[in-house]
Amino acid sequence: MGSTIAFYFDFSSPYGYFAAVQADELERRTGRAVEWKAIMVGSAFKASGNKPLVDQPLKGAYSRHDWERMGRLLQVPYRLPDRFPIPTLAPSRAFWWLADGDPVQAKAYAKAVYHAYFADGRDISDPGVAAEIGREIGVDADVLALAIQDETWKQRLRAETETAIAAGVFGSPYFLVDGEGFWGADRMAMVEDWVKRGGW
Amino acid sequence: MGSTIAFYFDFSSPYGYFAAVQADELERRTGRAVEWKAIMVGSAFKASGNKPLVDQPLKGAYSRHDWERMGRLLQVPYRLPDRFPIPTLAPSRAFWWLADGDPVQAKAYAKAVYHAYFADGRDISDPGVAAEIGREIGVDADVLALAIQDETWKQRLRAETETAIAAGVFGSPYFLVDGEGFWGADRMAMVEDWVKRGGW
Repeated sequence: MGSTIAFYFDFSSPYGYFAAVQADELERRTGRAVEWKAIMVGSAFKASGNKPLVDQPLKGAYSRHDWERMGRLLQVPYRLPDRFPIPTLAPSRAFWWLADGDPVQAKAYAKAVYHAYFADGRDISDPGVAAEIGREIGVDADVLALAIQDETWKQRLRAETETAIAAGVFGSPYFLVDGEGFWGADRMAMVEDWVKRGGW
Repeated sequence: MGSTIAFYFDFSSPYGYFAAVQADELERRTGRAVEWKAIMVGSAFKASGNKPLVDQPLKGAYSRHDWERMGRLLQVPYRLPDRFPIPTLAPSRAFWWLADGDPVQAKAYAKAVYHAYFADGRDISDPGVAAEIGREIGVDADVLALAIQDETWKQRLRAETETAIAAGVFGSPYFLVDGEGFWGADRMAMVEDWVKRGGW
């Protein structure tokens, strides 16, 4: 088994959600562990000069339509949340707090957060909601709520985001394997091919 | 056989080139004719607020690297031309002049133009080069040179670009089939799946 596949995502990113529901399959098909990494893609947008897709003429309409059909293609529930996009500081800090102790639980939490936002339309930017989602997967919600407000995890999220940007990450989802970057849920088949063939 | 698959491309677009080398295969696999449509994607960028990829921090470096590996993946010659991106008025007008008389010849010309630019590094923005490429595939270069300067084909290219933008096209390559749009060379497998299954 070679190095891991780093999987960068923002909880407010529909394509991040569509990648998340396929990440276990990528792990199975490549035999490489997928390392989940929540980042604040808004900071990457500032570095790259990008804007959220929905704020872009033509591309915005295309994206809204594309997300709907991606949900149907992947047969996962999807509905554009009423509040979109949103700042995802609360669940992202919670994610890193969990990841530090138990990456498997952090992954379960990330899946639950994505589902809460894109399937159930819950406001995951609300620290109370972010903590409650933890409770639903068996985490102590009170402790999680404290972690969300704790300076340690605020800094950890900032550091993880800065490290990602320094590694070239500029969007969500973004995959990094053996130093090779792949942007977009569309590229997961290429990630698999790259790993299996050891590059092209 | 259903309706055609419209394939919009700009001659200065590497991803357009990578789509062009796969377009015949898409036609074969779907049983739908692929209708080639040269457009000026710079006009679409004005409408969508986008910029050329190479002018974007992070994304620019990613794209340069991605084009190199896409060439290796598809096993087609590729080298970023010294002048890039360039205005592609000359070969695009020539394309439409040819397409009006013989779409098969226009397609052969489009392939030759892409190859001249991305494999051989020739300056296809030069009307003389655009005409010479026509000569190399058996077209009267003098007549083609006249068409490139002719107001009819200037207007035709503008009209085709405006029609494309009105249909939602905002980048190169872009595919439109049965009213459904797909952006990017990465999406050609989805175009095929969409056609075969009649949508999702």
